[in-house]
Amino acid sequence: MSFQKIDDHGRKLEALEHALAILGADEATHMAVGGGEKRAEAMAALAGMYHRQATAPEIADWIADAEAQTLGDEQLAAVREFRRHYTNLTCLPVEFVERQTNARMRCEQLWRDLRAKNDWAGFVPALDGVIALAREEAALRAQALGLTPYDAMIEQHDPGARTATIGPVFSELKNFLKDFVSEALAVQEERAAKRPVKALSGVYPVEKQRELGLAIMAATGFDLAHGSLSVSHHPFCGGVPSDVRITTRYKTSEFLSALMGVLHETGHALYEQNLPKEWSHWPLGRARGMAMHESQSLFVEKQIGRNPAFWRWALPVIAQHLNETWSLEDILPHVHHVGRGLIRVDADEVTYPLHVILRYELEEEIIAGKLQTIDLPEAWDAKMREYLGLSTIDTPGDGPMQDVHWPAGAFGYFPSYTLGAMMAAQQWAALIRDYPTANNDLAEGNFTKINDWRREKIWSQGSRWSTPELLERATGEKLDASHFIGHLRSRYGAA
Amino acid sequence: MSFQKIDDHGRKLEALEHALAILGADEATHMAVGGGEKRAEAMAALAGMYHRQATAPEIADWIADAEAQTLGDEQLAAVREFRRHYTNLTCLPVEFVERQTNARMRCEQLWRDLRAKNDWAGFVPALDGVIALAREEAALRAQALGLTPYDAMIEQHDPGARTATIGPVFSELKNFLKDFVSEALAVQEERAAKRPVKALSGVYPVEKQRELGLAIMAATGFDLAHGSLSVSHHPFCGGVPSDVRITTRYKTSEFLSALMGVLHETGHALYEQNLPKEWSHWPLGRARGMAMHESQSLFVEKQIGRNPAFWRWALPVIAQHLNETWSLEDILPHVHHVGRGLIRVDADEVTYPLHVILRYELEEEIIAGKLQTIDLPEAWDAKMREYLGLSTIDTPGDGPMQDVHWPAGAFGYFPSYTLGAMMAAQQWAALIRDYPTANNDLAEGNFTKINDWRREKIWSQGSRWSTPELLERATGEKLDASHFIGHLRSRYGAA
Repeated sequence: MSFQKIDDHGRKLEALEHALAILGADEATHMAVGGGEKRAEAMAALAGMYHRQATAPEIADWIADAEAQTLGDEQLAAVREFRRHYTNLTCLPVEFVERQTNARMRCEQLWRDLRAKNDWAGFVPALDGVIALAREEAALRAQALGLTPYDAMIEQHDPGARTATIGPVFSELKNFLKDFVSEALAVQEERAAKRPVKALSGVYPVEKQRELGLAIMAATGFDLAHGSLSVSHHPFCGGVPSDVRITTRYKTSEFLSALMGVLHETGHALYEQNLPKEWSHWPLGRARGMAMHESQSLFVEKQIGRNPAFWRWALPVIAQHLNETWSLEDILPHVHHVGRGLIRVDADEVTYPLHVILRYELEEEIIAGKLQTIDLPEAWDAKMREYLGLSTIDTPGDGPMQDVHWPAGAFGYFPSYTLGAMMAAQQWAALIRDYPTANNDLAEGNFTKINDWRREKIWSQGSRWSTPELLERATGEKLDASHFIGHLRSRYGAA
Repeated sequence: MSFQKIDDHGRKLEALEHALAILGADEATHMAVGGGEKRAEAMAALAGMYHRQATAPEIADWIADAEAQTLGDEQLAAVREFRRHYTNLTCLPVEFVERQTNARMRCEQLWRDLRAKNDWAGFVPALDGVIALAREEAALRAQALGLTPYDAMIEQHDPGARTATIGPVFSELKNFLKDFVSEALAVQEERAAKRPVKALSGVYPVEKQRELGLAIMAATGFDLAHGSLSVSHHPFCGGVPSDVRITTRYKTSEFLSALMGVLHETGHALYEQNLPKEWSHWPLGRARGMAMHESQSLFVEKQIGRNPAFWRWALPVIAQHLNETWSLEDILPHVHHVGRGLIRVDADEVTYPLHVILRYELEEEIIAGKLQTIDLPEAWDAKMREYLGLSTIDTPGDGPMQDVHWPAGAFGYFPSYTLGAMMAAQQWAALIRDYPTANNDLAEGNFTKINDWRREKIWSQGSRWSTPELLERATGEKLDASHFIGHLRSRYGAA
């Protein structure tokens, strides 16, 4: 009987999640510009209802009773994830959450204003307040979960991921990349010297690029009966599994950035569209976490979408939609471009992990109380110079003020990006081992067997396993940096 | 203190209304085709939450306490409308509402299938069940409101409207129209004999028609910062006052039907966009009712949008967008086309009221128990022959199975359409009296003073007055058919 109560409760929460997800996607795509204030009020009230309903004290009893029932495997897993969800929502006192929400919102607003002005001094007090609260949050979560504070924060994003595992893997990757970036740049220079790079510039009407994006989405497995493509200022994947909303943005002067954005969001969408439908009203039915989600988007964007075999198939599709013929030799230098830069979101797949590892190392120290807010610009600059040979000491807006994550209090999120990149490479390696002709399929635009593999190994599993367990079950191995390193070597290294 | 409780309560309900309104509009415009099942589940759950929160027993105490407080005029009006809202929601037992919802849904589904097959016999049992429940509903509401059963149903749609007033006014209009339709048709024939009608057909790309629609919307006062125009199968006006979603549908072979649809929905939208914002979380802040809402849409579509003065301004705008020049003499026969037909939604402004009065007369007898379901085809046919000289006895799909209203259990709604048409004509007459140069403004595409009058008299009043009071305050007179009759005579009658 108690399981039935949890089940009914899950359906109510699913309805509120549905409303919040669609209202959120709508806000960024179809909402009238003047509708924002009322939308924010409505979403805050609905989020409050969700929180009240999801944290009601009687749910603790239902879960405890259900745990004492004789249940099948699926139901046991469902109850376990209900408990995780409930614990994560209730381990912070309401008074603390309100205080933290206010501090985050003020800090985010300040950040939008001060970042462009490089005004670190003006920003420190607000960020310091958010950091103090993040340390408090980490301590509260650590106590509830029996983890170290930073692990307790990572656990929110990637259940089961621990610094004890991430640390060594990140170190190995960092040590490899610190030298490899130069090698990749030298290779790129050498190739450009042999064959001049054809510029990407042209004139590409938005409607043509949109039709191209839809054609590529459909071919790679996006179910257009359960999702759509729109335009927004920042590309995202939102909505609900039965109606996944992805977005991109277009430049009429080149087609590659919108197309790669579509591939990235399609990767997220495939995960959502292929989650187990019968579990959709349970936490068990959700995607496993941020790192696994990112591994799915990067699988499509990087493993597939920057694979030369894929481009053999894609170039004629592009020619058909944009009325322009590109050779593989002309497009690959753009698809595989590498460059040292200050900005994480603009980085390529070779340099991106260094941006992430820098943040991971700093926030581990921040949460541990070993690094103080005031010392962030120097700490950031030191690592930036060591890892990428660049300095941000005079431009904090491109340094510790670069991302919204810290002002928003989202500590423990950054590692997901690079964990995702490594996991995507590991999945591709496992796929090729199980299914050696995958590259041929890509060259023919045939994604069926590739997606069947991914559906079986990842998508259909929902939140059944922790992040490390899910990876190991899918690939037969624990997280291992060698696959990602091997991938980068073969795509970007000297022959 | 109790007023404050009601006020807070109103904000929560507003958030759920916001979600339901946007999810509803989204479903018809941007939702992926496969998203319907989950959307229906989510909306049903949210509607359940709304109903539970809006009918909680403690609200009765808050309202009673607030009524005993010393309040200002606005707050008094707000409490009165809270009570009306609460009474309307709570006067039906939950068990009854569930039974009725199920019967309506089954009957509506059956109707979608059987209407096209003209299968009246197969439809009778389901409709008879819905009618029995409608009579039960009317009796319950009558008891709660101290009204006759049919008045209690009309009260749901148009607070304050009563059969004692509607009956005589509809009779006068009916008696006029029964002869006038022939006169209007004779005038039309005579004109066509003098000047052949130029066909509407052509090739009009959707994007050009959309731009034309947006230009006309903006000119007539639609605030594009607080609303938008999309495409849907059935045109509607939805969303929320801060973000009003109107839709139309396009034929590429002619431009008039989409444009007239845009004008109609713009009329609804202007009312929503101009409601008092500070009351938006109170029932007091809503539009007054269906008849008044329809009067606003018909004001724009019929009083303005079929006025020759309007077309003097609009034709050059059309020429600019569609690259085609029409003379006033060529477009007016289309804008003013009159014809006898079986279908209400296809009717023109001369014949439309006869379709409505027929339904009003029948449903008054249905609710009173004087007319039985089984006898509907004969009763319908008799009136159809008398009013429009047409028979539906062999095609019940075009007779009592024509509309979704009865299968959906919506008795008391039909009168709103013709009350709206009469009220629009009465408002135009009052406007012309207060502001004699309104026609000149129309011919110049200047809607400022016309909209200022409407904002002051109607839009800004929200639900402050009953429907008859609001009309009388706006126009200085009680509902009087002579304005609508005069309008039809001057537009369609013999000189």
